[in-house]
Formats: sequence, structure tokens, C-alpha cells
Amino acid sequence: MKRVYLDNNATTMVDPQAYELMLPYFCEKYGNPNSLHDFGSETHPALRKAMDQLYAGIGADDMDDIIVTSCATESNNWVLKGIYFDKIVTGEKDHIITTSVEHPAIGATCSFLESLGVRITKLDVNSEGLINPDDLRNAIDDKTALVSIMWANNETGAIFPIKELVQIAHERGVLFHTDGVQAVGKIKVDVKDAGVDFMSFSAHKFHGPKGIGGLFIKNSQKLTSLLHGGEHMGGRRSGTLNVPYIVAMGEALEIANKFIDFENIHVKRLRDKLEDALLEIPDVTVVGKREHRVPNTILASIKGVEGEAMLWDLNKAGIAASTGSACASETLESNPIMEAIGADKELAHTALRLSLSRFNTEEEIDYAIEHIKKATQRLRAISSTFAYAPQWHKSGL
Amino acid sequence: MKRVYLDNNATTMVDPQAYELMLPYFCEKYGNPNSLHDFGSETHPALRKAMDQLYAGIGADDMDDIIVTSCATESNNWVLKGIYFDKIVTGEKDHIITTSVEHPAIGATCSFLESLGVRITKLDVNSEGLINPDDLRNAIDDKTALVSIMWANNETGAIFPIKELVQIAHERGVLFHTDGVQAVGKIKVDVKDAGVDFMSFSAHKFHGPKGIGGLFIKNSQKLTSLLHGGEHMGGRRSGTLNVPYIVAMGEALEIANKFIDFENIHVKRLRDKLEDALLEIPDVTVVGKREHRVPNTILASIKGVEGEAMLWDLNKAGIAASTGSACASETLESNPIMEAIGADKELAHTALRLSLSRFNTEEEIDYAIEHIKKATQRLRAISSTFAYAPQWHKSGL
Ligand SMILES: Cc1ncc(COP(=O)(O)O)c(C=O)c1O
Ligand SMILES: Cc1ncc(COP(=O)(O)O)c(C=O)c1O
Repeated sequence: MKRVYLDNNATTMVDPQAYELMLPYFCEKYGNPNSLHDFGSETHPALRKAMDQLYAGIGADDMDDIIVTSCATESNNWVLKGIYFDKIVTGEKDHIITTSVEHPAIGATCSFLESLGVRITKLDVNSEGLINPDDLRNAIDDKTALVSIMWANNETGAIFPIKELVQIAHERGVLFHTDGVQAVGKIKVDVKDAGVDFMSFSAHKFHGPKGIGGLFIKNSQKLTSLLHGGEHMGGRRSGTLNVPYIVAMGEALEIANKFIDFENIHVKRLRDKLEDALLEIPDVTVVGKREHRVPNTILASIKGVEGEAMLWDLNKAGIAASTGSACASETLESNPIMEAIGADKELAHTALRLSLSRFNTEEEIDYAIEHIKKATQRLRAISSTFAYAPQWHKSGL
Repeated sequence: MKRVYLDNNATTMVDPQAYELMLPYFCEKYGNPNSLHDFGSETHPALRKAMDQLYAGIGADDMDDIIVTSCATESNNWVLKGIYFDKIVTGEKDHIITTSVEHPAIGATCSFLESLGVRITKLDVNSEGLINPDDLRNAIDDKTALVSIMWANNETGAIFPIKELVQIAHERGVLFHTDGVQAVGKIKVDVKDAGVDFMSFSAHKFHGPKGIGGLFIKNSQKLTSLLHGGEHMGGRRSGTLNVPYIVAMGEALEIANKFIDFENIHVKRLRDKLEDALLEIPDVTVVGKREHRVPNTILASIKGVEGEAMLWDLNKAGIAASTGSACASETLESNPIMEAIGADKELAHTALRLSLSRFNTEEEIDYAIEHIKKATQRLRAISSTFAYAPQWHKSGL
């Protein structure tokens, strides 16, 4: 059975080279890096290399901290709650600004902080899934502690103008965090050039393992810890180091960056081919302009076709796709981002997210096109909401 | 070069069988378990099996939650901070009771909460590293929100009478958390029998990988999340599931429990042999009675021998040991547990922790005995603090 994986925004295959590199650290070089013996210290060269790869991979320098965490969810929680303890509990500030299209790791954490009395402003997005920078400017006030805006959206692939947004925040002396999960490894990410204070990332979105990520902290500035304990990671994030995954994450990031041109030329070409084919189908829309999106992502709406029904048909053909964030897809709900961009309820139920990687081939894309067309035809034929339209007939679908 | 690993309380080798079992989940079955396609759902049988292994492994039942976390440090932070938000921020309670010998993941978190105004009581331990249950009884007051006492100590191996301590807390309606990290896999741990409300554990202490652990929550009771976000783990702990490590952790726990008699007979016999040999050396003391300790641990003090100097000599012979918690051993400090049990400063600098596992052989123990004796002789000969004593001479050391 053919297997075509087009759900790379949910998670990715571990890069085989990163995989090979981490294997010795389970049953051979298994020491605790903090120990005072060779079992511990023999892990140091690989850890140092991995940390260097992370620093180089996002453009950080020696003055900055990159702290390894267990995932971007942890990094996101850390920043928001750290700022809460640093600036809000103290009474200095009371306000956090974010957007209506953040990942739940930001959204739900903001709701929690709201329940503790923090003022949360969620900036709206337009039909392309982007905010108006002036809205950010207008939302900032003297009590704003933090702006948290993602670098790229997990559903639409929309790229936010982080550098510009950072400048707006910094003009007012407000710290800026970005959830970089969907940008790292897909487009060039340079934390120095962008000027962000904090950036979260997660290895499994760039062909590293699931369950490891990091937080970039500019100039190693203060941020109350989320995980207190021993002296790991300079005392900023305690817990015994996950040596194999750190090694794999560093390598995966370096490889992803080596492939960044490939991603933006070859993967983009396949994505565009797939998108062009989708748009040939009547009553299909795609969210956002291509040039404002990461090169691997399509969020389409296929009128009259329930997202879950489409996934089912595709899955039978061995094709993996999504109706929206993987975190929510066990609950058959409408795509929250589709709602945020102003799509009506019905359309929000027809979301189909296709997200490619450098491991996809042209043959796979052709295969996917064929099956998406077939499934659309079949499902529209039995749809109660999709009225038969003449152009539909003409196109043979 | 011979390699003898006697630092299993710091971390362990991943069990080769658990290792094999997780490998397919990196580059083959790499889907996100929350996704609606086969790449996601083909991970479900292994995840279900692993969760069953965890439930069976600590005696939990269907009414309880076991939530996978990234480590025991996270689990410990979660319980303490969760209770802080549930019971202390609300004004209902203001007090947490713990001991003076907890791991920093409890100790440092308590210090953080203390800085927020929480009253923290740290129960003292006696020369064996154990608390007096009456001290717990006396410390509880109407404002006590939580008791957090470890099941077994990482330095001394001392086993706390958890069932009795739980009863004392529950008589007063106070919740009980135990850091079970050093007990799980070494002695029989049954959360139902013990009656604990919460228990933390970490896979890498029972031959699972580093960077994965869990929190047992009795009757799935309320506890404010530490990682807010998507609907993973029933919405209690967000973050994309670390499928390979969950699989390995479940298997590692099942295997550890299968070896529990082996641990308490064979590993204990080797430990006792090693301990007997140490005690033959003049001016060596070992903390705590054997019958009150987990079967793999020795915390010895070798008068006149700096712990770090001993580690150095042993390391040259390929033997890995510790002077205390791995988390702190990069800083050449005295062993904090030795201080807590009332040892004088000088003695606290002579701590040597030896912690075995089922992978150690008799030959390795003989080899270690030989080299500890040699190192003691060499280091005492050049020691400025250890005065030459006649019985020392007699024993040939
Ligand atoms: C934009 C974004 N942020 C955060 C996350 C959370 O990552 P993780 O599940 O690895 O914590 C994801 C993916 O699920 C994401 O797409
Ligand atoms: C008793 C105890 N609790 C907690 C921990 C923390 O475990 P981890 O480093 O896996 O978070 C350790 C080990 O370092 C420990 O020995």
C-alpha cells in the first residue's frame, strides 16, 4: 500500500542521519552529563556540538541562552508564566497581547492567566490570516508586559512580519516572544535580525524527535523558571538532560537549514503544483497568498466536503492530511483558524490542510492530486450541503 | 579498559529490550497519535500497551490518571505549583510540608513558592536519613495544603514509611505527594496500598530513557496544569506525545518489576558484599540500616578522603560513582544530605555514593572493591586531614 505523508505541520519523520547520531546514547554512552566520570563526560562533545548547531541554526550568539525544554508547549508556557511571575504578580504590569490564531499552547495558557486576572488582548486576523501591525501598535499600553505572536501559523502557513512587529513592541519597551515552531527549518530564522526576546521551537517539526524543544532567551535575560530544581541548563530548566534527543535536535536543525533552499524551491514547487491542482477544482479556496506563506503548507476549503470525510477517503488511499491542528483533531470540530479568518461555519468544516516536507516526491504529489480529486467527486455527489453547479459538471468533477 | 557503572541513582542504561521496542517510532511509525490517519493511529496499540504497563507497574486503576511528563522534575514542579494555584492562591491554605532531604526538584520549587509567601516546613531527618512520623503529625495545621515526602532518598537509599505518613496526612484531610523516583523499579511500589494522592516518577532511573516520566493522580483529581495547551493526555499535560519514549518507559517499568525479586536478592547481595568490604576499611561509615534502604544504594563516608578525589581515582580505573546528587556534582560542594543527617562539614566532603543495577556482575563488584581500597590507601597517604591511626596500619590500608 502506498503511503504519502502530507501532515508535516503536525509532526515529521525523524531525519535518518539525526536518528543514527543519537542511537549510541541509549545503551552505550548513557551516563548523566552532570556526573563526574567518563560515562558522564563522554557525552559532552556531542552535547556541545548539538548546542552549537542550535545556536548557529537560529542565529543566536554567546550572550544569549538557548535552553532545551521538552517541547514548544513547555517553552510557550514558560515564557507566559515566567513573565507573569516577573512582571505581573509584582504589580508592575498586567497585560499580554497575542493573536486569535496562536497554537493552544499560547491560547490556553493565556486563558489560564486571564483567570488569574491578567488582561489578554487577542489581535484579530484578516482573511489571509495576518494581523494589521497598527492593531498591535494600538493595543500596547503602559501596562503591557509581553507581546507573543507566532512566526508562522501552523494551519495556514501564514508568515507574520516578526521584525516589524518586534520594532513596534520595542519602541514601547515591551518584550517580544515568538512561537517559531512552524518557521524554524522552513524559512530562514535569525533571532538577532528579527530582534525577538524569546523564541520557542520544537524539534519534531523539523525532522527531530517529538518531546524535545527549546527556548531562545536574548542576552540570557531574566525569566522565572517553569521547572525549578537542580543546576541543569545553568539552573534555568532543571531535569536530567535528554542526551540522545538533544544530539538529534541539533543535527536535525543543521540539516533542515542546509535544505532551506531546497525547501523554498523544490518543496515549494511541489506545494504549488498541488495547490494549482486543487484550485482547478471548482469552489475550492486556499487561505492566504503563497508569497506570505511557508513553502510547505496549504490550507484549503473544498466546498461541500466535510474535512473529516476527505481525510477518511485520503487515508484509505494511504495519504495522511489534516483538518487542522493535530492537537484538536480527535474532536471533530470545525477548524478554529478558519473561523478566526472569518470563514463561515460551514466552510470551517471543509478545511483540508496539506503540509509537505523535503521527503515528499513529485510522484507522491501526483498521486495525492488524483485522490483528492476522486474523493471530492465522490463526497460532493453524496453531499447534502453542496448544490449541484454547472461549472462543476463541466470540469468533470 | 574495564567499565564498571555504579552510578545508577544518577541515571541508568536503557534496557536493550525497551530500546529495541521504541526504534520503529522514529523513522517509520512517526505519525502524531492525535492525527486522524493511519500514520497517527498505527501508534495507538503500542501507546495503549505502554500505558497499561505503567498502570500495572505502580498499581493504579482506571479511575486514576497517569499523566506522562518530560521527567520527575516536571512532575514535582507540577504538583507543588498545581496545589499552589488550586488551594493557596485562593486563600484556602498557605502551607506545604516536606523534608530536608528532598531532591532539588522539590527543594528549589518549595523555595520558589516560599518567595511567593507560601509557608514551607522542612522536616529534619535523623542520622539514618529518616524523619520521625510524629514530626509530620505535629507540623500539620489547618492551613496545610500538601505533604510532599519522597518514597526513597537518592543519596542514602533510605525508604520512608509512606503508607504510615499518608495516613497521618489523610487523618487531617491533607493531600499527599511522594517523589517515587528512587523507589520505582527497586522496591515494590503500589500507589493504592500506600494511598498516595500523587506520585512522580522518571523513566531513566529504571532503565528507560532520560527525558520522560510521569505523574500518578489518584482518582484523576483536580490539579491545575503546568503545561497548558492542546488536548493531549486528556488536556492535563499538553505537548505532542513522545511516542518512542512512552513505549520504552512502559516496557522498562514492566521489566524492572519482573526483576524486582532479582533486585532485592541478587543486586542486594552484591550491594551488601560491597558494603561489607567498605566497612572493613577503618573509619568508614555507611548511612542508614540496610533493611531501611533500597537494595542498590550505599552512601559511605571514607574519613580523610575527599569524595571528588576518590571519584577521580575510581574513574581512572573505569569505575563510575558519585559524591552525591548528579544534579549538583559539577559544583564541588559537600553532600547536602550528609549535612542534613548531621554529619560534620569534613565528613560531608568524604561522601561516596555507590548505586548498583541488575546489570552489574559479581566480577565488577570485586573489581570495584579492589580499586576503592587502593584509592583509599593512596589518598589517605597524601591526606592532610586524615591522621595516621594504628588500626589503619593493621588492616594493611
Ligand atoms: C505553532 C505551534 N506552536 C506550538 C506547538 C506545540 O508543539 P509541541 O506539541 O511539540 O509542544 C505546535 C505543534 O503542535 C505548533 O504548531
Ligand atoms: C529523588 C529524585 N527526584 C527527582 C529527580 C529528578 O529526575 P529528573 O532529572 O529525571 O527530572 C531525581 C533524579 O535526578 C531524583 O533522584
